[in-house]
Amino acid sequence: MLTLIFRKAVQSDLSHLIALLADDEIGQTREVVSDPVDGAYIQAFRAIGDDPNQLLVTVLHDETIIGCMQLSYIPGLSRSGMWRGQIESVRIAAGYRDQGIGRRMIEWAISNFKERGCGLVQLTSDKTRLDALRFYASLGFNPTHEGYKLSL
Amino acid sequence: MLTLIFRKAVQSDLSHLIALLADDEIGQTREVVSDPVDGAYIQAFRAIGDDPNQLLVTVLHDETIIGCMQLSYIPGLSRSGMWRGQIESVRIAAGYRDQGIGRRMIEWAISNFKERGCGLVQLTSDKTRLDALRFYASLGFNPTHEGYKLSL
Repeated sequence: MLTLIFRKAVQSDLSHLIALLADDEIGQTREVVSDPVDGAYIQAFRAIGDDPNQLLVTVLHDETIIGCMQLSYIPGLSRSGMWRGQIESVRIAAGYRDQGIGRRMIEWAISNFKERGCGLVQLTSDKTRLDALRFYASLGFNPTHEGYKLSL
Repeated sequence: MLTLIFRKAVQSDLSHLIALLADDEIGQTREVVSDPVDGAYIQAFRAIGDDPNQLLVTVLHDETIIGCMQLSYIPGLSRSGMWRGQIESVRIAAGYRDQGIGRRMIEWAISNFKERGCGLVQLTSDKTRLDALRFYASLGFNPTHEGYKLSL
């Protein structure tokens, strides 16, 4: 099994993280890969870092960035004041897919959410990502909700 | 058309907001309605108030609390560093349903998200809430995603 390191993303990871987001059927149409990094990403990175209820996670193997995901800790009144953990923007580098790394990432996220006192984990996945849908179902996630988006 | 006031929730709203969350087919099984309010709700209310990226909204008509919703502003790297607006826990008091109030609430939320610079609004709705599914579709929301939950 590959040795993985999970840590909070740092700004020098940014170009690698954007490349990960863009190296994806859906993501490639909506990310801007440039050197230097587009300023909008730097602003977004800082906004994530400034928010104690967000955690951008970089996943490394042998000092190479091979994955990322964003965890959000969402306080709420419903379900007796339960905190929700939300997972967004999960990506794994092309050469590292289908090796169980996604499963280890989600397990890491679940463990992190438990430490933070969350009672529920939620995420949405694009209905065209058939592999992802099977993957989340295999991890015990229930597709109980319809996930809506509206572009502004 | 009913006059509605939208404002940030204050702690004295809390018992009314919990009653709204509980007055619902699904919510009634998972909320604790008590006087005084269960401490878990007070903690959750404070956690929401402490987070500048959360806004719990109380909706009033004639000084009566008739609705609530929670807005989350989520920074992220993907889609070129776009902020997302997320809507959670939308509730309307039983006597005020089917009068277009939900539509005005979501329109208010969308306008608020635009002011905050969000490029996308997202929400999930339980697949058993057929009226809600039709409602969000009628507002232009696209059900592009599968919404997963995992209880911890």
